[in-house]
Amino acid sequence: MVSKQALEEQIKAQGDLVRKLKAAKESKEKIDEEVAKLLELKAELSNTNEDGSTALANQKFTLKTPKGTRDFSPQQMALRNAVLGKIISVFKKHGAETIDTPVFELKEVLTGKYGEDSKLIYDLKDQGGEILSLRYDLTVPFARYLAMNKITNIKRYHIAKVYRRDNPSILRGRYREFYQCDFDIAGTYDPMIPDAECVRIVFEILNVLEMPSFVIKLNHRKLLDGMFEACGVPATSFRAICSAVDKLDKSPWDEVRKEMIEEKGLSEATADKIGEYVQLNGKADLVEKLLADEKLSKNKSAVEGLEAMKLLLKYCNIYGTTDKILFDLSLARGLDYYTGVIYEAVLLGDGASSSEEVSVGSVAGGGRYDDLAGMFDPKGRQVPCVGVSIGVERLFAVMEARQAAEKIRTTETEVYVATAQKNLHEERMQLCAELWAAGFKVEHSYKKNPKLLQQLQHCEEYGIPLALILGESEIKNGVVKLRNVTTREEVEITRSKLADEIRQRLQGGCRNGL
Amino acid sequence: MVSKQALEEQIKAQGDLVRKLKAAKESKEKIDEEVAKLLELKAELSNTNEDGSTALANQKFTLKTPKGTRDFSPQQMALRNAVLGKIISVFKKHGAETIDTPVFELKEVLTGKYGEDSKLIYDLKDQGGEILSLRYDLTVPFARYLAMNKITNIKRYHIAKVYRRDNPSILRGRYREFYQCDFDIAGTYDPMIPDAECVRIVFEILNVLEMPSFVIKLNHRKLLDGMFEACGVPATSFRAICSAVDKLDKSPWDEVRKEMIEEKGLSEATADKIGEYVQLNGKADLVEKLLADEKLSKNKSAVEGLEAMKLLLKYCNIYGTTDKILFDLSLARGLDYYTGVIYEAVLLGDGASSSEEVSVGSVAGGGRYDDLAGMFDPKGRQVPCVGVSIGVERLFAVMEARQAAEKIRTTETEVYVATAQKNLHEERMQLCAELWAAGFKVEHSYKKNPKLLQQLQHCEEYGIPLALILGESEIKNGVVKLRNVTTREEVEITRSKLADEIRQRLQGGCRNGL
Repeated sequence: MVSKQALEEQIKAQGDLVRKLKAAKESKEKIDEEVAKLLELKAELSNTNEDGSTALANQKFTLKTPKGTRDFSPQQMALRNAVLGKIISVFKKHGAETIDTPVFELKEVLTGKYGEDSKLIYDLKDQGGEILSLRYDLTVPFARYLAMNKITNIKRYHIAKVYRRDNPSILRGRYREFYQCDFDIAGTYDPMIPDAECVRIVFEILNVLEMPSFVIKLNHRKLLDGMFEACGVPATSFRAICSAVDKLDKSPWDEVRKEMIEEKGLSEATADKIGEYVQLNGKADLVEKLLADEKLSKNKSAVEGLEAMKLLLKYCNIYGTTDKILFDLSLARGLDYYTGVIYEAVLLGDGASSSEEVSVGSVAGGGRYDDLAGMFDPKGRQVPCVGVSIGVERLFAVMEARQAAEKIRTTETEVYVATAQKNLHEERMQLCAELWAAGFKVEHSYKKNPKLLQQLQHCEEYGIPLALILGESEIKNGVVKLRNVTTREEVEITRSKLADEIRQRLQGGCRNGL
Repeated sequence: MVSKQALEEQIKAQGDLVRKLKAAKESKEKIDEEVAKLLELKAELSNTNEDGSTALANQKFTLKTPKGTRDFSPQQMALRNAVLGKIISVFKKHGAETIDTPVFELKEVLTGKYGEDSKLIYDLKDQGGEILSLRYDLTVPFARYLAMNKITNIKRYHIAKVYRRDNPSILRGRYREFYQCDFDIAGTYDPMIPDAECVRIVFEILNVLEMPSFVIKLNHRKLLDGMFEACGVPATSFRAICSAVDKLDKSPWDEVRKEMIEEKGLSEATADKIGEYVQLNGKADLVEKLLADEKLSKNKSAVEGLEAMKLLLKYCNIYGTTDKILFDLSLARGLDYYTGVIYEAVLLGDGASSSEEVSVGSVAGGGRYDDLAGMFDPKGRQVPCVGVSIGVERLFAVMEARQAAEKIRTTETEVYVATAQKNLHEERMQLCAELWAAGFKVEHSYKKNPKLLQQLQHCEEYGIPLALILGESEIKNGVVKLRNVTTREEVEITRSKLADEIRQRLQGGCRNGL
């Protein structure tokens, strides 16, 4: 670190430089740059003591995390890690590998992938070198990874944070830094076999997290396009109309219809025809009905989409997910890059009858995107992909609300070593060392002479099941007092048998008494 | 997404605006800003098809990750997760919780914490709003977390990526994005009890990772300061001389001596006195020798440091780490904020005698920093901290080199369901669904009619222990052929007994034959 005096000299020299540049009428950029350096030096000076060390306790700014971000406490992390562990176990049940990519990408990699939302991308400052942006999702980096490494098939999951300069709505659980949790199958395979497994994975994840009631909505982009065409939407407006349909989960049909007519330029007749279709939902019977529909049965894209849905529903039946799926023509998904099946899983409220059920929001979504990896390949070689993104932030929120009542453990400590009298801390440390060497998870107080009550309270607060209590008489007799923290029962154990006794009690679930 | 036509209209309007601004001789900044928007629109146009969808295969830039960063393949991730899992198990053995903080902080939080290295901080672009920087380490965010949440005691680990705009030396394993893995104990406790546990944790981690030979070097900042004072170094130069001493692990004494004299302004006599001390290393005997040293015994700070070392070495003895520690007066650590004990663990080479042992670099480092959290508290309230940072990137590299020969599994799949004839894919899917429901980790081919050889090769490539083979005769007879992939032995199993049979073989370690 630079001494105060050295800093003062640097500031003087920098001030001289700025004055010289101004006198020479140098460019504003050049002058601004040197003025910025001067201000930095001055800020550093105000934070520096005489001996060059950094001054303490003179932070003048508000202590906070950046807008739309937050810290996670041990309680939150314990819950998050438990939830992620369950989700990962499902991915592993289906043979998935995992990869990781950098938190930032060359800005060009992200350019042109997110349509209007590109304005939400975080850019890094140009500090000389490459122009970088923080990743906006995990799908585009995945496609870049496939193309760059010339990978033509992989089944991978990726759990990592992504960044969006959105207006955070903390109340609705939306943040600028949040986890995404993606599972994707890349490769050239037979129709709907990987697609049906993605549905099964969403089904298993929502079951393993004990979500009481949910539905996985399914639709197909080719059917949507064919339906739009059959209703008279011009081809150039397919994506715009698709975006409008996507709003049906939040807005009533009247509003969406208005948008289609007033903003997207559809005729009333065309909008009304669309309106009839997007009200439809069902299962295999609906596919048959639509295959017989006068307009759709004449449209190539619609028939392709319907045949694909028929196959998907058959496979869903084999995979045992039929009860939870719904073929829903109003499902459109916001992203442009989908080319086939699209999914969205929605949690349902506690309403008794199905008509009263209230959607509490999407907790998973995805679909097939066969063209994205090809965008990165110099020769446009495509790698067909299908995948699903688990809305873990929303699931965390649901689990947090559910577990608010019960206390979740933030540590895994099995044994707490306590002392009952003063000046026994070295005996305590000796016992800890023995138990660590035997493989146990062990803690003790970092104070030499803590009060016994405080030590036992620590056990209760952190849910540590067993306490060992050492006093002078125990040490003299070669024994330890073993206390079940929950039942408060205590027994004396010979030191030589201690490890076995602890192991036995932990295996037996020591909360059920000694 | 906007249609091509709409884009062309926007470009025309933007072009008109730029011409108008130029005609009106508006400021260069204003004009540049609008020109930039124009260029962005043009870039978007060149990526857009007639229907508004994004054009494929026209990426003109080199496909790469940003300088100094990299992707991690499934193989690398499998190894990393295995190593991190072992490290986390040690942290949990010592009762640690975990927390997380955002990847970026307000720039002010990082200002004045890293001395000369502040120039390596990544800044985010000012897109309106707060001025942000990517985190440079996990220690400063931890101190900010403590102060902001008014936490006075916590024992936590934090594993996350940090960012430094260093010149990456990929060969030496240095990157701009890399993991840090920190364990810290914050709280007001009795001397050296938490400090000795940090040493024990480093000791356990290097043991659990089966590092064959290592040493944990210990020193104390108060002893260093006292020694500098006793040698005649002016107080304003303590930190600068400390930085010079820190280079002794890479540079010979002659060079460090030269730096002290020529750059840091010490007299030759003072430098030579320091040179005598920094050659010393040993264990408890060295503490006694230095407590009797004529110069040091008269220096308050040195005596405090030596008494602290004496206590630490005593506790290390209780904790069973004595064999692996070395009290080393040349250990200085680069960071300014240490106030007490400092640690550094170094792997040793395979040289037979200790004099031939070659240091292959630091794999853990840390120390006590009692003042850092107070820097963030408006009233300067301090939270004493001691901690250690595990050099996981270097440990990953060591483990990668070690495991290069053996193949590491990237999935956990237990059973692969194969078919021996065509058109049995629905039977295969049915069997997968049954096994998933029974809790097994199961895969099958996503092709309708894969070749049996290819299916079995997939099992061998991914180390899947069991394959189930379905053919028409098996289906007719209600049996499945169960194949041990390693031994290639096959037996027929009745469908109703299949789950039990698989479970038995997996528990028995089915690699040892059926």
